[in-house]
Amino acid sequence: MRFTKMQGLGNDYIYINCLNYEINDIPKAARFLSDRHFGIGSDGIVLILPSDKADFRMRMFNSDGSEAEMCGNAIRCVGKYVYDNGLTDKSRINIETLAGIKELDMVVSGSKVEMVRVDMGEPVLEPAKIPVNSAKDRFISEPVTVGDRVFDVTSVSMGNPHAVSYVSDVDEFDLHFYGPKMETHSLFPRKVNAEFVQVIDRNTLKMRVWERGAGETLACGTGACAVLVASVLNGISERKATIKLLGGDLLIEWKQEDNHVYMTGPAVKVFDGEIDL
Amino acid sequence: MRFTKMQGLGNDYIYINCLNYEINDIPKAARFLSDRHFGIGSDGIVLILPSDKADFRMRMFNSDGSEAEMCGNAIRCVGKYVYDNGLTDKSRINIETLAGIKELDMVVSGSKVEMVRVDMGEPVLEPAKIPVNSAKDRFISEPVTVGDRVFDVTSVSMGNPHAVSYVSDVDEFDLHFYGPKMETHSLFPRKVNAEFVQVIDRNTLKMRVWERGAGETLACGTGACAVLVASVLNGISERKATIKLLGGDLLIEWKQEDNHVYMTGPAVKVFDGEIDL
Repeated sequence: MRFTKMQGLGNDYIYINCLNYEINDIPKAARFLSDRHFGIGSDGIVLILPSDKADFRMRMFNSDGSEAEMCGNAIRCVGKYVYDNGLTDKSRINIETLAGIKELDMVVSGSKVEMVRVDMGEPVLEPAKIPVNSAKDRFISEPVTVGDRVFDVTSVSMGNPHAVSYVSDVDEFDLHFYGPKMETHSLFPRKVNAEFVQVIDRNTLKMRVWERGAGETLACGTGACAVLVASVLNGISERKATIKLLGGDLLIEWKQEDNHVYMTGPAVKVFDGEIDL
Repeated sequence: MRFTKMQGLGNDYIYINCLNYEINDIPKAARFLSDRHFGIGSDGIVLILPSDKADFRMRMFNSDGSEAEMCGNAIRCVGKYVYDNGLTDKSRINIETLAGIKELDMVVSGSKVEMVRVDMGEPVLEPAKIPVNSAKDRFISEPVTVGDRVFDVTSVSMGNPHAVSYVSDVDEFDLHFYGPKMETHSLFPRKVNAEFVQVIDRNTLKMRVWERGAGETLACGTGACAVLVASVLNGISERKATIKLLGGDLLIEWKQEDNHVYMTGPAVKVFDGEIDL
């Protein structure tokens, strides 16, 4: 089976063209292929499939074999994959995912895609829908006690729940202590992705993320979107800002016209390979 | 650049045919290629080179770019690589390494190598040469206090220093507590690889290893050799036994005739790939 390893901000998946190819036991294949010592090694696998609702359909499976809804870093790579491999000649495409149909705009340099802009949809601010246990209309800059500290937390859903807090020095911040405590705080009935943000200026925010069920990761696309939305709601940033993550930078824009959040970031091919499955 | 990813007991390296190919900045390439999120991902890279002293020469570089002397799991894969790719038609070859010339015997099934036996040389038992701070002739079953426990430790060098101890249940054993304390015990001036062994029977030993500078790993070839030697010296096992490690099994034999230790284990090709370097 031929495959391509790609990464977006260090979020690395194995991309497989399944337009004319079928994998029998996908969860088993995902577990084997993702194993970093006995397999190819990745955060998971992404299948590129035909769709009757969009240009393409993607299905993602985590390294434990479970199916994932969507990942901002992965969908950018899907855009690069289908364009660079000549599966489409359009630079604007839409892709069917378990989280709905997503629209992509590709930035092409030469004949290859370098950056991709993804329409991440509208942020959800109603506490019941995030979900966060609060009787208020919105959960913006609310004091939350975590361990020995009180954080002013803003909660946003981008299809998954986020809790955004601000710190003075994100590099020095003890994420491994506060992250899991925020993730499992009783305010969040389905747990939460916890972002901690250092404000550089009104156009630049630096963040680290503690992902629900995964711990600290190099990057989280929906987390970066939540950080921009929270920072606009708190009057800290412009509606368009660079979000600096451990794995690299994302440009996030929350457009006034349509209330949608747009994420622009890199998509990188690492290598092509062939493996017996 | 074309490469092959191979593993032995989960110890995975990127193998590159450098008989007619040169890599400019090898440490830099090793760091990039070994990166598990931005590169191919591996424990390091192995270059297969011509030799004027042996059939082939191998050079190994760790994921941090430093050069390694030898690795029992890697050299088996070198044997499989050169045989399966038709670079030799001999099933007995020798390979030049920084730790000397090593002899390999390949077990071929069909046209492919499945198992490789490596002559790991003679064990070193003199404390000054291991090194271990002891005035005795040999360091066999000596009581050593580590934290709240006293272990009966046998120390052996297989080119690198090992401290072998026995426990009743190796799965339940708190390796992450005792391993680093043994590694850095004042007895061992150059630190030590710490093996903890559960005796299944006289032909089967189950071990976990805390590697010097690396922590717990899936397998350690020289560690398995040290365990067999220590177990023979303690009258616990036969001179030939299966050593069960987290990454799989090795068959180790300490031959009476030549005093050499022979390690037999699997070598597995995972996939072929091509990357821009």
